[in-house]
Amino acid sequence: MEDLQMFDSLIIKSKISDSYSVNFINNLNSQLEILAKNEKYIFLIDTNIFNLYHENFEKIESEIRLVNIDSSESNKTIDYCQEIIRKLMKLNIRKDEKLVAIGGGITQDIVAFISTILFRGIDWVFFPTTLLAQCDSCIGSKSSINFDSFKNLIGTFKPPVEIFVYKGFLSTLNEAEIRSGVGEMLHYFLTEGILLANQITENINEILEDRSKLDFYIKNSLRIKKKVIEIDEFDQSIRHIFNYGHTFGHALESITNYSISHGQAVTLGIDLANFISFKLLMLAESDFEDMHDILRKNMPVFEFDENNVSDYMNALSKDKKNEGNKIGCILNRGSGKVEKYFLENNEWLRQTILDYSKHYKLI
Amino acid sequence: MEDLQMFDSLIIKSKISDSYSVNFINNLNSQLEILAKNEKYIFLIDTNIFNLYHENFEKIESEIRLVNIDSSESNKTIDYCQEIIRKLMKLNIRKDEKLVAIGGGITQDIVAFISTILFRGIDWVFFPTTLLAQCDSCIGSKSSINFDSFKNLIGTFKPPVEIFVYKGFLSTLNEAEIRSGVGEMLHYFLTEGILLANQITENINEILEDRSKLDFYIKNSLRIKKKVIEIDEFDQSIRHIFNYGHTFGHALESITNYSISHGQAVTLGIDLANFISFKLLMLAESDFEDMHDILRKNMPVFEFDENNVSDYMNALSKDKKNEGNKIGCILNRGSGKVEKYFLENNEWLRQTILDYSKHYKLI
Repeated sequence: MEDLQMFDSLIIKSKISDSYSVNFINNLNSQLEILAKNEKYIFLIDTNIFNLYHENFEKIESEIRLVNIDSSESNKTIDYCQEIIRKLMKLNIRKDEKLVAIGGGITQDIVAFISTILFRGIDWVFFPTTLLAQCDSCIGSKSSINFDSFKNLIGTFKPPVEIFVYKGFLSTLNEAEIRSGVGEMLHYFLTEGILLANQITENINEILEDRSKLDFYIKNSLRIKKKVIEIDEFDQSIRHIFNYGHTFGHALESITNYSISHGQAVTLGIDLANFISFKLLMLAESDFEDMHDILRKNMPVFEFDENNVSDYMNALSKDKKNEGNKIGCILNRGSGKVEKYFLENNEWLRQTILDYSKHYKLI
Repeated sequence: MEDLQMFDSLIIKSKISDSYSVNFINNLNSQLEILAKNEKYIFLIDTNIFNLYHENFEKIESEIRLVNIDSSESNKTIDYCQEIIRKLMKLNIRKDEKLVAIGGGITQDIVAFISTILFRGIDWVFFPTTLLAQCDSCIGSKSSINFDSFKNLIGTFKPPVEIFVYKGFLSTLNEAEIRSGVGEMLHYFLTEGILLANQITENINEILEDRSKLDFYIKNSLRIKKKVIEIDEFDQSIRHIFNYGHTFGHALESITNYSISHGQAVTLGIDLANFISFKLLMLAESDFEDMHDILRKNMPVFEFDENNVSDYMNALSKDKKNEGNKIGCILNRGSGKVEKYFLENNEWLRQTILDYSKHYKLI
């Protein structure tokens, strides 16, 4: 299959900045040293990554201007971004310089947001360090910032000018972080059919043992995302298909206070979207079952019951993609054909969600 | 001259939103009523305008969702934008709704900034109410927000989806506000030659008496700006020519604590840029004199002397467009040919600025 062949870099076309590249690198130090030698870069490094990879940063520390990012969800705010801008101004940052972000999705959100609004736009470079950031968020231009109780209410579109994916970072992630990335990849893979989704979950234990095996899946995940974001960078039409599993996943994250990882919530979200598709006679039961067998290998421990289903319905009713009282989501017609659908928020849906957990007890 | 013919609307091509239109309207009420009838609009109205034009808003007040904007320079901050977003969320704003901004440049900055970051972008419509906003800032996509002591450090690019220019708003402006707009128009006009610049200053007294005479100049100012921003919307190359008069004008605003209006500071800034061009043998003395005769009719009361020139040089040295120790500015080669130049910040420049005021005492 031609599409699945390996590559060491990927060019993403963008309406914002013409194009940018994802470079898969094997030597972190040499890349850091190249950037450190150039006075035009200011480094913004996630504090955990800075400590974990201190040996790598030690060599450049004396040569660079550095700001540490405390990348907790509670710091994904406009106020924290203002704090960071204040630090950048103290370092005499100028419009023609570049930011280098090293960290996961939260570091990305903070630096991407700042890079949009500071000087009406400043270039930034990104080293994603989590699987989620490497396989998904590093491309696509979005930043997301929380506002009061509203998650990801604020945001902008601004891709990095260059992305460096160093797979060595994956070795220090815990199992939950790997599974979260796998869940996100599953939702991309299933928009093409079941081949890759089946392959990654079949090999999940080997992957957890040897993270270098993720390389192939990361590249394919980005390849699938690239095709769509190049057409609809601003998420106005076809990019909506990547909400597959997300409406149902976000509501699950919300009612469990984010104790379930994003990607595992999405895994269950996909399964539930498929179950609803099957119940609406859009998807054959056998297709649902085939995908369920794949998804259950990455499923979080959670069941819907009379005690939590009302909260869940309520969380669904608040989704940004809803129109009026209808729940905006992506359903599945089989063989990778996913499409937008507006579900009535009614007793049928409530019962179908309860039925899902009754019939498909999770491991 | 074909270019100078009148039009009732102007289409501006944009990379951000395909295109948007400037509509010159004669009936404010009917346009407000059309928007008020549509539930998808939320109005953000400058408090002064709301009070001054209360009769116009009275008719729609019961039908609309309204947020007042206190458009002082000190409110042009990220924190004030967050306050306004909080109010919009209380009004249950949704992503598919539109903001309607009614006010001058500060209202524009605040609403344009919010419209870029809220929901990763929300459409907005603009009724500019000052001459500066009508003849200049309403097109071109920029927003500017202050940060700590840094003026306009923060900003974004996002044009309105539609602009309605109602010349009736000009009748309640004071002379300083009209002269500020005239100064801004002079800098556009002089990039084409002296014809329109001469005409507007020749007629300045009539214009101050009868604001409807501004219509022709506003349209020509937008026509000139349109040509350039359609090529370089993101201010990376040719749009820099519109910094003409601005490097020198901004520094003047800064050392006088903004007691001189923006457009009148720009008027003096143009004259000083021309004087420096003449002293550098780029511009014939007669060309300088011709433009000086035009500009002096809109000049602020200010003179450089030994007491203020050091502060002024210091303010110039902080301009965002500088490179290293050189002052980035736009100089004039005559007949509308303006171009980027980097001036040494040295004793020659200091002396030339003092000479300017010695030789050209202002009225």
